[in-house]
Amino acid sequence: MRVRNLKNKKDILENSNYFIKNPEKYKGKWNKLFGNKNQINVEIGSGKCKFIYEIASKNPDKNYIGIERIDTVLALGIKEISKLPKLNNLRLINYDAYNVDSIFDKEINTLYLNFSDPWPKKRHAKRRLTNFRFLQKYDIMFSSDRKIIFKTDNKDLFEYSIISLSDYGYKIKDISLDLHSRDDKNNITTEYEKKFSSKGFKIYMLNAVKKYKNID
Amino acid sequence: MRVRNLKNKKDILENSNYFIKNPEKYKGKWNKLFGNKNQINVEIGSGKCKFIYEIASKNPDKNYIGIERIDTVLALGIKEISKLPKLNNLRLINYDAYNVDSIFDKEINTLYLNFSDPWPKKRHAKRRLTNFRFLQKYDIMFSSDRKIIFKTDNKDLFEYSIISLSDYGYKIKDISLDLHSRDDKNNITTEYEKKFSSKGFKIYMLNAVKKYKNID
Repeated sequence: MRVRNLKNKKDILENSNYFIKNPEKYKGKWNKLFGNKNQINVEIGSGKCKFIYEIASKNPDKNYIGIERIDTVLALGIKEISKLPKLNNLRLINYDAYNVDSIFDKEINTLYLNFSDPWPKKRHAKRRLTNFRFLQKYDIMFSSDRKIIFKTDNKDLFEYSIISLSDYGYKIKDISLDLHSRDDKNNITTEYEKKFSSKGFKIYMLNAVKKYKNID
Repeated sequence: MRVRNLKNKKDILENSNYFIKNPEKYKGKWNKLFGNKNQINVEIGSGKCKFIYEIASKNPDKNYIGIERIDTVLALGIKEISKLPKLNNLRLINYDAYNVDSIFDKEINTLYLNFSDPWPKKRHAKRRLTNFRFLQKYDIMFSSDRKIIFKTDNKDLFEYSIISLSDYGYKIKDISLDLHSRDDKNNITTEYEKKFSSKGFKIYMLNAVKKYKNID
């Protein structure tokens, strides 16, 4: 996401109760931070936080952590959600997905990847969030079975991700090649998804699981 | 495929060198029938035989067997291909896919499923050629790794098949959500595919492999 710089982004982040400055400190201890034993779910690439706020708001019995690499984008998101009712089950991190293994240790249930950068050039394939380099990084995050829910409007990235996840031992438990044609009132859209779907683009979704003791 | 009855269908079938009347006789012995040790590939649901004839014609170093359940359709296909150059590496069978384990025993390389009946009603799911009941039947056909190449224009059947194959231990090695947007000169179309693609429908394709010694 290309955005203009935000002068007071540092203040916005640091003054927000949602924002966690040094997330490495909580590695293996996120449940302590939340003060409960509820399930923890993570979104990588939270953008302006619409999805992660909405899912957290609808599921008060679960905890949610949104990760966004670009500080300006995260600050814009925090600015938005600060106007909304305060949630105790949501935290936000400004971090690079490639280092998630520095901040989680066998403690999350489900990983959401929503409208990740497609990195269309072949030489950039390793930057895609479903590339095996990332899948390896994610392994350590999960408390048990590895569960990824992935949405995109990019056909090439979706095809790539099916092959990559399948190759890494994930099984496809659910898939839609046109998510919005399903009558699914539980689908929570991102800002991007809302915009592109309204323009008639198809939204692809998959739900993949790799068993914890998969020896294949 | 709904077709008018063909009065002389029995004659057409039995007078053709392509047609094998009692395929059970050749179980485990198809290479003997072909008189060579070349790879054997099978298509289930050959319809009017355009695909299986064309792929056999382009690959004289491999053997091909087409299976079609409806005798009238197969007779129409044989009528058509009888006008074309004779191929020694092609045989055709009038048989129900559900009984393939009666005619093959660890001797085929790749199974093609092209534009199979989608059986859209949920209560008919078990009739879909990618239902696990069929996947179990196919297991015994393959000489080594199980390889399925599947094409359809039916989104729901394609989604179903990805989940079913994945659940059964197949890995998705290649996938296209719009096959004809690929510049693939090697794609051999069926009658159906040609017609529907020209009307603007998307053609879906996947290539799935299950390792022979997959213990998962």
